[in-house]
Amino acid sequence: MRKHIQKIKLKSRKIHSANYYYEGIKNTNRTVLSEAITLIESTNLEHQKVAEEIIELCLPHSGNSIRIGITGIPGVGKSTFIEAFGSHLIDNEQKKVAVLAIDPSSKKSKGSILGDKTRMNKLSSHENAFIRPSPSAGKLGGVAEATRETILLCETAGYDIILVETVGVGQSEIAVKSMVDFFLLLTIAGAGDELQGIKRGIMEMADAILINKADGENIKKAELAQQEYKNALHLFPPNKNGWIPKVATCSALNQNNIEVLQEIVNQFYLLTNSNGSFKKNREEQAKFWFDETISNSIKNLFYNNPKIKDAISRLENRVIKGEISPFKAAKKILALFKT
Amino acid sequence: MRKHIQKIKLKSRKIHSANYYYEGIKNTNRTVLSEAITLIESTNLEHQKVAEEIIELCLPHSGNSIRIGITGIPGVGKSTFIEAFGSHLIDNEQKKVAVLAIDPSSKKSKGSILGDKTRMNKLSSHENAFIRPSPSAGKLGGVAEATRETILLCETAGYDIILVETVGVGQSEIAVKSMVDFFLLLTIAGAGDELQGIKRGIMEMADAILINKADGENIKKAELAQQEYKNALHLFPPNKNGWIPKVATCSALNQNNIEVLQEIVNQFYLLTNSNGSFKKNREEQAKFWFDETISNSIKNLFYNNPKIKDAISRLENRVIKGEISPFKAAKKILALFKT
Repeated sequence: MRKHIQKIKLKSRKIHSANYYYEGIKNTNRTVLSEAITLIESTNLEHQKVAEEIIELCLPHSGNSIRIGITGIPGVGKSTFIEAFGSHLIDNEQKKVAVLAIDPSSKKSKGSILGDKTRMNKLSSHENAFIRPSPSAGKLGGVAEATRETILLCETAGYDIILVETVGVGQSEIAVKSMVDFFLLLTIAGAGDELQGIKRGIMEMADAILINKADGENIKKAELAQQEYKNALHLFPPNKNGWIPKVATCSALNQNNIEVLQEIVNQFYLLTNSNGSFKKNREEQAKFWFDETISNSIKNLFYNNPKIKDAISRLENRVIKGEISPFKAAKKILALFKT
Repeated sequence: MRKHIQKIKLKSRKIHSANYYYEGIKNTNRTVLSEAITLIESTNLEHQKVAEEIIELCLPHSGNSIRIGITGIPGVGKSTFIEAFGSHLIDNEQKKVAVLAIDPSSKKSKGSILGDKTRMNKLSSHENAFIRPSPSAGKLGGVAEATRETILLCETAGYDIILVETVGVGQSEIAVKSMVDFFLLLTIAGAGDELQGIKRGIMEMADAILINKADGENIKKAELAQQEYKNALHLFPPNKNGWIPKVATCSALNQNNIEVLQEIVNQFYLLTNSNGSFKKNREEQAKFWFDETISNSIKNLFYNNPKIKDAISRLENRVIKGEISPFKAAKKILALFKT
């Protein structure tokens, strides 16, 4: 039954030439942009071929944006914040804003992280905003690749601020960090328990920590948390790019101090652009994705080999039980691949 | 000339049967143990074959130790601390102590991290201690593999505390963390600048942070640092194994409060052994090394292919310049490997 539905979907979707999509994207036609992204996310080989051509056409026109990653555990108010921040950028800074998301656990049918556009009512209705939910559930590698390519298309379409949202789970932050220029950790004040939700390593990745929900009775708590975070950041070594991570409070709900993020990002851009680390970071990211993709592809090639699959499941158990050393077991596996 | 010397060395080193080494190791013959480790570290294929047999013979007798990783930047007094701690374990706790090291940057000729045994005068002369410098310079993967296998041999020889030292650089901490039961960060108090030396992520890996050089005028500073670290650790989520990292001060020079580490390790073992996480961690580590070795081996197989090497160096530059998307470039490379 499911297969049947899928077939109809694919048939009914007319595929145009790569040039058609490219022209539409250049003219900021959001419907065409959406369709092109769908091709990027598709696992259909024909779609992939066209998607690849679109990307190569867009590549020379991409790069002219500031890419901002936003992470935070559920409950810190990411959607409300993005709604407020995006609207501020459009209304007061004359920016065009694209909002993307990475959530490998999301299922489109269930409504992904940004699937429910009603959560961003104002922003989604604005003609200078483009909101795209996370690609549906799949391996993080694939989801991240699709999002990274989507950034290129959005930039070609003229969006000059790209927000990439992620949830505070698994490896998705690392994927987002490696495709953005600036990484924001959104959090809330709390007696300690809430802060515990921050995954190890996330704090060190942040270029700024913004404590949301600093409103009403929470203001004092938020200011205390701000000091705590500042102290904690002191324990970390300085970034190679010379940037000192900033900590601030805001209230997305009351649209209070939302502009602070844009000020911080501006400072960040001024510094890293003048000392060359902005460009250098992007080059390193391109190299990272090149290496990552090669590495993942050869792994797939290897692990999808039925002989290997079988041998690994047999040997893994013996390794865990300590019956064979991991290194000898690995050598056995490799010998199989070579034959 | 160099080749000639190497030849003589290899010829003059008589290789025995795996059983010979195994018997010697079982009898805690330190000379035989040393020779066996040299075989493990050797790149000579004949040596490797014997080494593999030795490891398989030792495997059923290994595991009966507590493996403690120790990291800290140069200057915190690691050698003095290990000397004091090791001596304490032998003299007051009736333990047998092996000290290993991982330092991929070390060169034997230049004296590696532990090469200069005079730095551990007392310990190295004790009959219940075994000190082994880091394998000479090489890829971290190889150095780590040799050290992990050396642990198995030391355990078979009856050493019940294995200390694995590493320097605070590169990826070597992650390698050590993945082969020990307990991970110690040794540090010193300072106005901030010293703390900056801690690499991102190391603090979160630590099961204990010990502030050394808490003597004389430094005592107050050390106590302040202790509080700072405690506060910072609060910001991290609890470990899955239920362990709350401990922070303490000591003076290795004055042999003051050295025993605190053994008390902490004992608490740690009591907790993690009773809730099953001690065993679980070791099983996960075995699986990790199995996966790592497979993954590194296939990478080597792939990247040592001359066709691939050539294509990567050509395409990498274009990727960095943004002339081709990293994903398309990676696909090109993979197509080469398949043909």
